[in-house]
Amino acid sequence: MVEWWSGGDRMNQIEWIAVDWGTSRMRLWALNAQGEIVETAAADAGMAKVAQGQFETTLLQLIEPWIAGHQDPVPVIACGMVGARQGWQEVPYEAVPCTPSTQFSKVVTESDQVDVRICWGLKQHSPADVMRGEETQIAGLIHGRSDYDGVVCLPGTHCKWARINQGQVAEFQSFMTGELYELLAKSSVLRFSILDDDWHSDSFDEAVLTALDGPVSITGRLFGLRAESLVSKTGGHGSAARLSGYLIGLELASARRFWESSEVSIIGASKLAKHYQRALRLAGSSAQLLDTETMTLAGLRAAYSAYKVESDV
Amino acid sequence: MVEWWSGGDRMNQIEWIAVDWGTSRMRLWALNAQGEIVETAAADAGMAKVAQGQFETTLLQLIEPWIAGHQDPVPVIACGMVGARQGWQEVPYEAVPCTPSTQFSKVVTESDQVDVRICWGLKQHSPADVMRGEETQIAGLIHGRSDYDGVVCLPGTHCKWARINQGQVAEFQSFMTGELYELLAKSSVLRFSILDDDWHSDSFDEAVLTALDGPVSITGRLFGLRAESLVSKTGGHGSAARLSGYLIGLELASARRFWESSEVSIIGASKLAKHYQRALRLAGSSAQLLDTETMTLAGLRAAYSAYKVESDV
Repeated sequence: MVEWWSGGDRMNQIEWIAVDWGTSRMRLWALNAQGEIVETAAADAGMAKVAQGQFETTLLQLIEPWIAGHQDPVPVIACGMVGARQGWQEVPYEAVPCTPSTQFSKVVTESDQVDVRICWGLKQHSPADVMRGEETQIAGLIHGRSDYDGVVCLPGTHCKWARINQGQVAEFQSFMTGELYELLAKSSVLRFSILDDDWHSDSFDEAVLTALDGPVSITGRLFGLRAESLVSKTGGHGSAARLSGYLIGLELASARRFWESSEVSIIGASKLAKHYQRALRLAGSSAQLLDTETMTLAGLRAAYSAYKVESDV
Repeated sequence: MVEWWSGGDRMNQIEWIAVDWGTSRMRLWALNAQGEIVETAAADAGMAKVAQGQFETTLLQLIEPWIAGHQDPVPVIACGMVGARQGWQEVPYEAVPCTPSTQFSKVVTESDQVDVRICWGLKQHSPADVMRGEETQIAGLIHGRSDYDGVVCLPGTHCKWARINQGQVAEFQSFMTGELYELLAKSSVLRFSILDDDWHSDSFDEAVLTALDGPVSITGRLFGLRAESLVSKTGGHGSAARLSGYLIGLELASARRFWESSEVSIIGASKLAKHYQRALRLAGSSAQLLDTETMTLAGLRAAYSAYKVESDV
């Protein structure tokens, strides 16, 4: 890449831009030819918050100082919900088994200062499943450990479990646990009994074990979280932790074939990720926690390598 | 009861008033000394729609023509959420085992034209559970069949299963199935794939059987309802029926001890009640459908009998 103005300015070192563009937030990195971070940015401009037709403007405003003065279009590699139907431009899902984040689509832009690519999501035909964004985090893990033979768990609104084999995603499954928790805790009758600051590890542990021991009973225990606070004066104690424990325990019971005899990596460092780690330990398994941002950026770096190969051809 | 004006008017025949005062609606019956219906009324003035301090006014406006001209206070027997903390006056829950709707609390009114009583709900200490309103429908069933030895299922937002033994509620359990369906179908990511008019009996049946066969797997199948419509062009077919089938099947799997070897009566004539009946048949059981209004009124009649005994003492 040739710069028209060689002032030694940091911005001139920027070779490409990585973007993690999710539903609610976006995170950007400007990287040099060695893949080192030159600048970073973040914005609340998630896919769901940007009006149709405003995606390019949103991006350009954020990266303007990074691309100013570049003669050639600067490659921008993005992943996440920006590639959904409601996003900037719908890009396909690649069917598993496959190596994640090696396929991307070019976005038609008005500006000729950027060359934007959005990474494809992953799909599975049977049982039907999809992911968009998490595949890049998985690609980051594979990029760092090409011999990884195990399972990845990505807690969130729709928690994903994926089996990795020989550098590929062999199969995966989504669980609506995070969304169920939010709906039950904030929009159902349980909201009267569940307080956000009401966290008790003992209650969580007990609920996880109850769910692992008798997952079928859980659907009949949820209303009890409300009833207890009505029936007994001391009831409702630790109910946020219990609801979380019931739902995560139920997910572990259902996802048992993933974690039971495999190495498990949880991508995430949030409280939620730690709850999953704790629950897995109670289930007799163990899992390492990997940093989401590190994995995402590693995955985008892998995608950029694929982009460069493609561009050179 | 002595009328000051004996004009032979229908209103003079009214001896007492029965009220089913739920969360969203209320239904009223004026009854004569023989327990026959003289007049009926209904209003959208459910507990959740009436401001604090306005319950008496709301009631009096609806029954004014019925009580005009009565010398003595007219007994008003009410059941339902009007007796909740957020209702007119909080009344207790009676602990099971007990005969439902034989206990009620007097409501202090400004008017001396009425003598208002609200039926108590039912509670269970362990596992903790409560009901308010359904106990009167159960009382109606028991009133009509004092020898009933079996189970009652009351589908709704929070479906209740109750075991009846020797005229008493021995135990009961609530399932949040109805509320879960509403939240998932209307507020979760599944809303994009679930259409209200999208009902297929075959899909419902298949989902019920899937859930009965492998209840633990259901939590991992929910997201598939969304994914199918993204992965395959024909996907998402019958997804409302499938979601309903999954959730009702899961409930049946969890409530198995109630229905497996007992006579089952479902109180309800709604589509939902018929879905429960159909699901039970798939599970190898059977259930009769009883009319909600008939049961509620029968239960309020039983409560009025208890009131008269109490008043005479």
